[in-house]
Amino acid sequence: MKKLSRTSLSKIVLLVIDGLGGLPHPKTGKSELESATKPNLDYIARGSVCGLIDPVSPGITPGSAPGHLALFGYDPVEYSVGRGVVEALGIDLELKPNDIAARGNFCTINDGGILTDRRAGRISTEKNTALCRLLNTVTVKGAEILVVPVKEHRFVLILRGEGLSPELADSDPQQVGLAPKKVQALSPQAQKTAEIANEFLSQAQSLLRSARNDSPAANMVLIRGFSKLPDIPSIPEIYKLKPAAIAVYPMYRGLAKLVGMTVLPAGENIIEQMESLHRHYADYDFFFVHFKSTDSRGEDGDFEAKVRAIEEVDNALPNLLNLEPDVLIVTGDHSTPANLASHSWHPVPFMLRSKWCFPDNVTEFSEPACLNGGMGRFPAVEIMPLAMANALKLDRFGA
Amino acid sequence: MKKLSRTSLSKIVLLVIDGLGGLPHPKTGKSELESATKPNLDYIARGSVCGLIDPVSPGITPGSAPGHLALFGYDPVEYSVGRGVVEALGIDLELKPNDIAARGNFCTINDGGILTDRRAGRISTEKNTALCRLLNTVTVKGAEILVVPVKEHRFVLILRGEGLSPELADSDPQQVGLAPKKVQALSPQAQKTAEIANEFLSQAQSLLRSARNDSPAANMVLIRGFSKLPDIPSIPEIYKLKPAAIAVYPMYRGLAKLVGMTVLPAGENIIEQMESLHRHYADYDFFFVHFKSTDSRGEDGDFEAKVRAIEEVDNALPNLLNLEPDVLIVTGDHSTPANLASHSWHPVPFMLRSKWCFPDNVTEFSEPACLNGGMGRFPAVEIMPLAMANALKLDRFGA
Repeated sequence: MKKLSRTSLSKIVLLVIDGLGGLPHPKTGKSELESATKPNLDYIARGSVCGLIDPVSPGITPGSAPGHLALFGYDPVEYSVGRGVVEALGIDLELKPNDIAARGNFCTINDGGILTDRRAGRISTEKNTALCRLLNTVTVKGAEILVVPVKEHRFVLILRGEGLSPELADSDPQQVGLAPKKVQALSPQAQKTAEIANEFLSQAQSLLRSARNDSPAANMVLIRGFSKLPDIPSIPEIYKLKPAAIAVYPMYRGLAKLVGMTVLPAGENIIEQMESLHRHYADYDFFFVHFKSTDSRGEDGDFEAKVRAIEEVDNALPNLLNLEPDVLIVTGDHSTPANLASHSWHPVPFMLRSKWCFPDNVTEFSEPACLNGGMGRFPAVEIMPLAMANALKLDRFGA
Repeated sequence: MKKLSRTSLSKIVLLVIDGLGGLPHPKTGKSELESATKPNLDYIARGSVCGLIDPVSPGITPGSAPGHLALFGYDPVEYSVGRGVVEALGIDLELKPNDIAARGNFCTINDGGILTDRRAGRISTEKNTALCRLLNTVTVKGAEILVVPVKEHRFVLILRGEGLSPELADSDPQQVGLAPKKVQALSPQAQKTAEIANEFLSQAQSLLRSARNDSPAANMVLIRGFSKLPDIPSIPEIYKLKPAAIAVYPMYRGLAKLVGMTVLPAGENIIEQMESLHRHYADYDFFFVHFKSTDSRGEDGDFEAKVRAIEEVDNALPNLLNLEPDVLIVTGDHSTPANLASHSWHPVPFMLRSKWCFPDNVTEFSEPACLNGGMGRFPAVEIMPLAMANALKLDRFGA
């Protein structure tokens, strides 16, 4: 791709409707997309080549990171973003290239050291913040320690220093009735980092048992998903694009930054995101616009609310269409059927509209309609080359 | 898959209709499946996501072993089962991990040592059994020799001992007019095994020329397909399943054992197989049910008989449906069109029914109908992840 890509004036807009795909409602037999009133999405479908994408591969339910990496053209099995890094991205934390990030939980252990509650009774974010302040007093030789609150019982642990390695096993035993584990090095070069992590855990336990902790249920911490920023070639480097991201939620901004996008102001909703798109339209040639609440309402298991979220995106589309982007792609990073109330493995509707696509016979944007689209069913990593081709930004391959 | 799989109470049934796919009858233009009366298969199709599978890849005609390995989730190019091992599995022979198995033929050579009949006039199984008894008197230094009759001119040769290697070329020249070859070692560590095999061949020739042989046409043997049990991760290991096989024919039981399935009593036909499924349904969470005669009648070139075989399976299905398995998959290991009277490369109809599949518009189970199914055309190795996903036995991939 690096060899074939070239810069041009044409513009690509990738609209990601998070958790887009669904399943038929048991009563109506219609999915969330089929149930929504969405004249603009259907209008785009009629001028598009449609299909169904597999973010990772059939049967595999992707997390948000692999789902988005695939849309950005990266093989999600080759390039993985660890739990700790995702957690840090999710609170807009600026990671340095050598930082080791881990996901932390405040938890409860009994007098015998056995885990009795993995979430310390889901303490409030306020108490969490106070406890993180306490843990930030830990000092360990060989690394700076940062403990940053997330929400309820969750925090991010950062180990910052030279020569640290993320090749560490979790301290979290993942089930109550067991004792939290010591952090084990998974390679010889991670030995020093394991010692640092264990020293942190030991000091943390002392502090949490001391009179300075007024949330006694939170008497220990669990750590998992040690990871660092992946070494990933950037979108400007591969595609010679000048890409920008317009996302309300921090994690998606973080993922976008990871692949070299400039993060633009997004406002608070899709209407304001479209306004931001207008303001910055002249300055970039690739725009990733992320819409979140389809996924959130799907995860809530609220079919009707997910339908309304789809209608909310649809309603904002005229202010995208009037920009007449050379290539417009609408898809999702994975399915989140309200019936399942979780991410799922089902393929995701996809459409690409450009002057140079061969429109198919699809007249509405839905799972069954897209199945009969011109792209058929295909892996999400193929979207970026397709977008580049339709933007006439790719040279011929071979003589 | 190993990392994502988890155990749960849900049940998966994989019904393999051997050689399922066919070709249109020259007179009616309808395939065997399209010609059969099969209300139950069609009923399942209406609630399923359908598709067409390629067992290996387009254009490749699979043997039974690669066809089944793909259905069980193994890349059939990476994991191969040699001819000798398949022949041993086919007669329920219990192989030890270091055994070297080869397929043998009794054959006829002339006075000049030139092969004149590769099958010794297809001697009877009875004569074969007597000859194998004779060959079992061979003793060779360095290995125990076992010669086990199969059918007509065919037998299995087992070399049992320490430090043996299957990296040996065939003695079978594969055509008359040539002399049987000496067994050549294909690697230095197979040298000792080559000498053992050649010593066996030399003693076998002496015995078959002696007065103790009263089938003079069988005056020599041909050996091919030296192989040992492949080192293959088991289904319980990869998928954390407790799998069982219900197959009437030994080879399919053998293949199932190879991947870690428990072999259950199957009775003599599909009706008795379904009864066995009922009896053992509580004790396992994955069932492989194998139906053979569609393939046999296809290989006979008997179109009508293959149609009747499909109807025989269909007739047994109510006693499967009443178990309401969480995931039901119906497909084949390859196509065996009666018109071709052999295995073929054509893709094979597939359907998967579960509470969590997105049913498509397919209303009957046939090659043309499945082409328009929700899965489209896809590689058979993707079936297992899909089955696991639909059984809600897979964790999310990535953060």
